[in-house]
Amino acid sequence: MTLNLVWVVPVCGVAAIVFAIYLAWDVLRRDMGTQEMQDVGATIYEGAVAFIKRQYTTIAILAVITALVIGGLITLFERFPEVEIDIVELGIRTGIAFLAGAACSAISGIVGMYVAVKSNTRCASAAGRSVGEALLVALRGGAVSGLLVVALSLLGVAAIFYLYGGGTTPHDAPFIIVGFGFGASFVALFAQLGGGIYTKAADVGADLVGKIEAGIPEDDPRNPAVIADLVGDNVGDCAGRGADLFESTVAENIGAMILGVAMAKVTGYDSWIFFPLVVRAWGLIASIVGLMSVRMREGEDPINPLIRGYAVTFILSVISLAACTYLMLGQAWWWFFVAGLIGLLTSVAFVVITEYYTGNRWRPVKFIAEQSRTGAATNIIAGLSISLENTAAPVIVISVALIGSFWAGAQASGVLGISPTVGGIYGTAISTMGMLMTCAYILAMDTFGPIADNAGGIVEMSGAPEEIRRGTDALDSAGNTTKALTKGYAIGSAALAAFLLFSAYLDKVELVRTKMLEGLGYAPDVVAEMVAASQVVNLSKVEVFVGALIGAMLIFFFSSFAIRAVGRTAGEMIEEVRRQFREDPGIMAGTSRPDYARAVDISTRAALKEMIAPGVLAVATPIIVGIVLRAEAEAAFLMVGTICGVLLATVMNNGGAAWDNAKKSIEAGLLKDADGNVIAKGSATHAAAVVGDTVGDPLKDTAGPSVHVLIKLLSTITLVLAPLFISL
Amino acid sequence: MTLNLVWVVPVCGVAAIVFAIYLAWDVLRRDMGTQEMQDVGATIYEGAVAFIKRQYTTIAILAVITALVIGGLITLFERFPEVEIDIVELGIRTGIAFLAGAACSAISGIVGMYVAVKSNTRCASAAGRSVGEALLVALRGGAVSGLLVVALSLLGVAAIFYLYGGGTTPHDAPFIIVGFGFGASFVALFAQLGGGIYTKAADVGADLVGKIEAGIPEDDPRNPAVIADLVGDNVGDCAGRGADLFESTVAENIGAMILGVAMAKVTGYDSWIFFPLVVRAWGLIASIVGLMSVRMREGEDPINPLIRGYAVTFILSVISLAACTYLMLGQAWWWFFVAGLIGLLTSVAFVVITEYYTGNRWRPVKFIAEQSRTGAATNIIAGLSISLENTAAPVIVISVALIGSFWAGAQASGVLGISPTVGGIYGTAISTMGMLMTCAYILAMDTFGPIADNAGGIVEMSGAPEEIRRGTDALDSAGNTTKALTKGYAIGSAALAAFLLFSAYLDKVELVRTKMLEGLGYAPDVVAEMVAASQVVNLSKVEVFVGALIGAMLIFFFSSFAIRAVGRTAGEMIEEVRRQFREDPGIMAGTSRPDYARAVDISTRAALKEMIAPGVLAVATPIIVGIVLRAEAEAAFLMVGTICGVLLATVMNNGGAAWDNAKKSIEAGLLKDADGNVIAKGSATHAAAVVGDTVGDPLKDTAGPSVHVLIKLLSTITLVLAPLFISL
Repeated sequence: MTLNLVWVVPVCGVAAIVFAIYLAWDVLRRDMGTQEMQDVGATIYEGAVAFIKRQYTTIAILAVITALVIGGLITLFERFPEVEIDIVELGIRTGIAFLAGAACSAISGIVGMYVAVKSNTRCASAAGRSVGEALLVALRGGAVSGLLVVALSLLGVAAIFYLYGGGTTPHDAPFIIVGFGFGASFVALFAQLGGGIYTKAADVGADLVGKIEAGIPEDDPRNPAVIADLVGDNVGDCAGRGADLFESTVAENIGAMILGVAMAKVTGYDSWIFFPLVVRAWGLIASIVGLMSVRMREGEDPINPLIRGYAVTFILSVISLAACTYLMLGQAWWWFFVAGLIGLLTSVAFVVITEYYTGNRWRPVKFIAEQSRTGAATNIIAGLSISLENTAAPVIVISVALIGSFWAGAQASGVLGISPTVGGIYGTAISTMGMLMTCAYILAMDTFGPIADNAGGIVEMSGAPEEIRRGTDALDSAGNTTKALTKGYAIGSAALAAFLLFSAYLDKVELVRTKMLEGLGYAPDVVAEMVAASQVVNLSKVEVFVGALIGAMLIFFFSSFAIRAVGRTAGEMIEEVRRQFREDPGIMAGTSRPDYARAVDISTRAALKEMIAPGVLAVATPIIVGIVLRAEAEAAFLMVGTICGVLLATVMNNGGAAWDNAKKSIEAGLLKDADGNVIAKGSATHAAAVVGDTVGDPLKDTAGPSVHVLIKLLSTITLVLAPLFISL
Repeated sequence: MTLNLVWVVPVCGVAAIVFAIYLAWDVLRRDMGTQEMQDVGATIYEGAVAFIKRQYTTIAILAVITALVIGGLITLFERFPEVEIDIVELGIRTGIAFLAGAACSAISGIVGMYVAVKSNTRCASAAGRSVGEALLVALRGGAVSGLLVVALSLLGVAAIFYLYGGGTTPHDAPFIIVGFGFGASFVALFAQLGGGIYTKAADVGADLVGKIEAGIPEDDPRNPAVIADLVGDNVGDCAGRGADLFESTVAENIGAMILGVAMAKVTGYDSWIFFPLVVRAWGLIASIVGLMSVRMREGEDPINPLIRGYAVTFILSVISLAACTYLMLGQAWWWFFVAGLIGLLTSVAFVVITEYYTGNRWRPVKFIAEQSRTGAATNIIAGLSISLENTAAPVIVISVALIGSFWAGAQASGVLGISPTVGGIYGTAISTMGMLMTCAYILAMDTFGPIADNAGGIVEMSGAPEEIRRGTDALDSAGNTTKALTKGYAIGSAALAAFLLFSAYLDKVELVRTKMLEGLGYAPDVVAEMVAASQVVNLSKVEVFVGALIGAMLIFFFSSFAIRAVGRTAGEMIEEVRRQFREDPGIMAGTSRPDYARAVDISTRAALKEMIAPGVLAVATPIIVGIVLRAEAEAAFLMVGTICGVLLATVMNNGGAAWDNAKKSIEAGLLKDADGNVIAKGSATHAAAVVGDTVGDPLKDTAGPSVHVLIKLLSTITLVLAPLFISL
């Protein structure tokens, strides 16, 4: 029994969008709080929209140029496309798919940010009534973004698939829609880089002068950089992450469909190609139910109801995964269910590991907090060691998951009469799809974070009672955890998906090479023999090894740009804040209003300028390596680049979050001196922890997430341009 | 014309040892300075010897256990050795070779440290007469160590090669001497880890309390941790680096000989096997002449005469390389000369790159210094970005060198009638040997650093005139540069050698598999076909990819141990120094002597304890991966581990040096405020730079060099135990 359940894709996708609109309406109709809150909210909104407009204008120009270049390259240099299609048409279609992906990615980011920036005052106002209501507002605001991103990626992939002939030639369509994934990654890269630089330059600048030099609290309205900081939360964390997960799901979905083609060819039925879409559609429904189930009990830690909702989503995902595999994948469904389950469990493992390394109840964060006693240097050294250490557990989990899901897929090969390798690789693809099922819920939890953070800022700046601030602080703390969890989840899925994406690339290389040889008039058996080596990436060849070396280096080099941009801009910001304090003593006295606009302007200009170089580096390097060192070296470049990217992103994301929470745990009074007195804010120990937090900022919110996008970009760019790298 | 020039090996080796003895005599007969200097020198000597005794006792126990385990594993599990030998004998021989390598490595480290610790007072005393003489003393002291290490590695490899039948069965001997390399790496790992933890815990502790909190100068006798710091320079920098470069040259030499076997088999003459030994012997002579040529002109920067000496060594190396290739490698000598020249040029490129990233005249260090104006956080962020950035240029150089030397070797294949791959790989081996020719000179420059550093400390502590201190400061500054250059050189050679070591591993795997299949009675043509894939490391297989992932992770995880050990111990040290200052105000007043022994004891205990876990991790992981995931995955583990190791070591070594020199450039008055006044020591900006320097310390002197040793250890361990990982 192999049903073609593909009709559920539009149904679930549209249902999710309708539900997101309902949530948006529900949030927006709520009370916007006091006039002061509304004023602060309006200022943030203004700054965010101004930045997003300028940023996406720049990105749009870059995207159009890139679309033309790609279309042109394909038209000029591709001679033997992997599918039956006119070459000029292929170039045009790829360019259009690229622009469509870019547009959808941009919409995901912009809408997510818009709703978040509108939810924050509502959340602040709700906090005046009850923390439970504030939690609901923030989560629903986040859910709008989460559901839209996932629905849009699902519908976008499905739409372009059918537009490009998926209904009649399902074996060809997955290959020509890869431009859609590339476009999405392209926009996500610049969105994440620009937003990340913006938010952290403002944050670092605001914290270092405000907290350490002037001794005023976080989000104090006297700090000239405070509005830039709050704007940054929206443009970096919301818009950036939305675009990021949009492209992740798109790239992985398309990759899985390409692998599905290989399965369809050998088994003779096409469900394999549609399966990734269907299973994700069900995941969307599971996420909606999970989101609706969230209710906070009086006085409990806000993280608990969020985790309960995640559990609901998880269980429903398991059930629907079982149903989908059973209905669509025929006799061997059981093994693919196991593979998918491994993916779902992997996501849970990543959540647990991230919590261990970034939660303040466990050894790593405690160690960093302890080491702050002896100053900033030992705090940083401790943080670096924890950052590096925390690569081990994720790598072990990923290794087990990859081998396990490959094994499960290979078990199915006997029944299906296919080779264990083809089955095994599809197993890793199903595993990734399983992991992605809970994506909408995870993304809602993620966007919850900046909304709660902003609400806290608005409460503080509008001079609302201390009690309300305590409520939003509790939400903010939960938000920090969920933000770290999302990054862990994203990087876990990237690692798991890596194998699927490499395999898709190798499949494409094999197909193109086959067409090439057939075009040159070789006999089919000769061709079969000649392309047999296409699936081999032999690291012991010197040029392949060099490709790997450059792939690893690119990750380090790219990160350096992102980090330096934040450092440089933060330095400017610090000078500006110091200048304002120096030139107008009325600011600290509270009698005159600081010039927020100057700080916003510094972040905006720097972010727009500094995102260009690393972005261009990321796009150009894979193309140059592929052209100079050819297809096999490019595969090694991609694979080892991905390995290093996963590791370095884990180092930076979790390390940064651990530093942040070490500081927070000191602020929460968890560290005591030899006499048992709490080490307070304003102490040398706290100042050391603030330095650590600040160092972690560009790592966890600029470089780390950008590297995550970069990995995906490398996959999609190599998939699209593979034919240029192939010689005989 | 293919002469067997192997007689030059003992001649040059013995000549180098005789010359080293002469230099040692020359240094030791010199004036030891004032009584105060001798007292300080004696205290340092005492601490260093006490530590080295305890450290090497522990290492000896670990080495004996490991030798038994390895011998046992081979005897129990190896069934089809790659050479004609009884299995029990192979196990015993490997164990003995391991212990011999371990012993030579230990001797290299201990002698180097001994001479350095004896040279420092002589250097301090000579500085009272002239900086030129002090430079000579420090360089000659360093040369004793450099020449001994290289001569010992040359003679050691040659001796064990002939003892194990190299005279009669030169095609087999290289394979059974790999245990010698493993033993050397094993000792080097623990020596570098223990020494590195010792030196940096003391350094960080001394600096943070002394310079920042108490505001006393570096090496001030009132600082309770100052002796531990000076001892650390000797046990970490001298002993550690000596053992490190000993094992590097051994491993690379043996690897090159193994590749020489492949060449000898296809060309029919054995010079290929001896060539690596001969060319290194000539390099030793070139280094001696270079060392003797060093003379300092009145008033010039001490780095200049050192660089002139390096130039002499370089030119002589080129000439003797040409002679050796011409006399030994037959018609195709020209191409191998080109390959060797590429290696020599690569070492120059690494020296230039390291100077750019760590010298205070260039952008990177200036940027870090600038960013110190806005505090420790921006200093650290800047340093991290520079650290990551500085991976790019070395990777490009290595990529060009690998491809270039492979290409050159492949050009020779036509004349020799061999496959381009075999010739190409031997080209990379020759290139590495070319790079190693200047090793003794480089190592002498390296050990020069800690001797000069110690001399400065002795001058300061013995209350000698300020003018003398200025002289030793100039030497110390040159020493910082040469130390960074050595690390750059070491890591460059590791990267270049990586390819040759992988290839040696794959050769061994192929041989073992051939014997295994022959032993099982397969026909020769079937065997040939079945082993053809042995040279392939296919990253697109799931278990191979997982091996690569784990290899990369090991580097990060291992580094975390080394860094954490320093952080933890430095924290203890800070508490101890603070305690002594608090409990005895006479220390700061200069009326009572601090308790140096307590600080020495903290470093000693911590170093011995903390070196165990990372050491065991480094040895156990490759064995577990090989046994579970098998030989091909092990190759990927080794290759990608090496790639990540080269990158992370570059990040840590150069990043740390850049932080150090940013601080030094502020201390030298190179940074000015807006009004043009020099930003002085004791300012907030300087304090920020000290934090950066301190963070860089464990990176550049503990984790970075240890990772370098780790890479080599992975190569030798996989070479030795390869048969355990092979299944059909």
